[in-house]
Amino acid sequence: MKLFGYWRSSASYRVRIALNLKEIQYETVPVHLLKDGGQQKTDAYAALNPAQLVPTLITDDGVQLNQSLAIIEYLDALVPSPALVPKDPLGAAVVRTLALDMAADLQPITNLRVLQYLTGTLKQPEASKVAWIHHWVSQAFGAFEKRLETTAGRYCVGDTVTLADVCLMPQVYNAERFAVDMTPYPRIRAVVAQLRELPAFIQASPELQPDANT
Amino acid sequence: MKLFGYWRSSASYRVRIALNLKEIQYETVPVHLLKDGGQQKTDAYAALNPAQLVPTLITDDGVQLNQSLAIIEYLDALVPSPALVPKDPLGAAVVRTLALDMAADLQPITNLRVLQYLTGTLKQPEASKVAWIHHWVSQAFGAFEKRLETTAGRYCVGDTVTLADVCLMPQVYNAERFAVDMTPYPRIRAVVAQLRELPAFIQASPELQPDANT
Repeated sequence: MKLFGYWRSSASYRVRIALNLKEIQYETVPVHLLKDGGQQKTDAYAALNPAQLVPTLITDDGVQLNQSLAIIEYLDALVPSPALVPKDPLGAAVVRTLALDMAADLQPITNLRVLQYLTGTLKQPEASKVAWIHHWVSQAFGAFEKRLETTAGRYCVGDTVTLADVCLMPQVYNAERFAVDMTPYPRIRAVVAQLRELPAFIQASPELQPDANT
Repeated sequence: MKLFGYWRSSASYRVRIALNLKEIQYETVPVHLLKDGGQQKTDAYAALNPAQLVPTLITDDGVQLNQSLAIIEYLDALVPSPALVPKDPLGAAVVRTLALDMAADLQPITNLRVLQYLTGTLKQPEASKVAWIHHWVSQAFGAFEKRLETTAGRYCVGDTVTLADVCLMPQVYNAERFAVDMTPYPRIRAVVAQLRELPAFIQASPELQPDANT
């Protein structure tokens, strides 16, 4: 498989973790979101994803897949073990709720294109951009922390790694990058400390990607 | 079942459509997002959803579910027919991609709390708020229109109503509310014209809800 992504993209990071957990070999194709005015906006990349967002996964059959959560659910069906979404409907709902808290209600509001609109089109200063990130992270992490009260074990949902953990890790990486105070979130910190021990999560980390710091 | 929601909330609208398609009876419990500083922020509602967002579905077993896409996937497992997400992994990925284009990459960026932050905290004028909405709608609808080129039949994916349609309809309602020019999106318009014929979609429309225009 080929993964078109960017080292610091949360959505690419999620798919890397899932591919590693499933032990699926893949080739990284870097799409630099800042160089050349954003390589995701080129015609070549738009042909892979009309939304001009990363990642895109090309399967062994040559199928182009977009949207990280759709890709991960596909991989979960293709390689059922370890399961990232439980088979029982209620367990699946719990996992997907936590995943969407991060992947729908936090990440899209704080991703690069939105920050570029704030500082570019709306001419907001850097401090206002950082305050924006901190505001939405605190909303999302506050709710997530509360949910973990009833769901967490060693990981977000019990003692098994799920899609919830796959979505949490990149948002914590991002929060730390923008110096968010993690003190109010002891349960999130405890789960992330566990995730940071796992090879699949370690190998997916932004700094270890071939396009890191380019 | 009980659905805590708001007539104009896109996420509530999605769940109403899904409940109607599945022919599941439910009771509406209005949560007014503007009155009393936002009823979703009360302790009573936060106990149902720590993210202080609508909707929340209470199942017949008394289970509280949040996150519209997680709820709809749960309903799809509970009442398998009509299926809103195809059983084959590739078909499911196509449907989920379109759904996430609307529910992750458009709706969270343009929802009430973000607009309130723009006009409140960032003191942006009304025109800037409307330009924000138009910008993100055109990004998302442009990509969606392109995807429909290969996926659409009578509906978003072939001739069967799916989760993609369930997520598209509320965003078109919103776009029209903010006078977005729909001319560049003939495929979206054709699909929505079909959806507007279906009782499940008609009965879920904001204006027909008990809390409409309150």
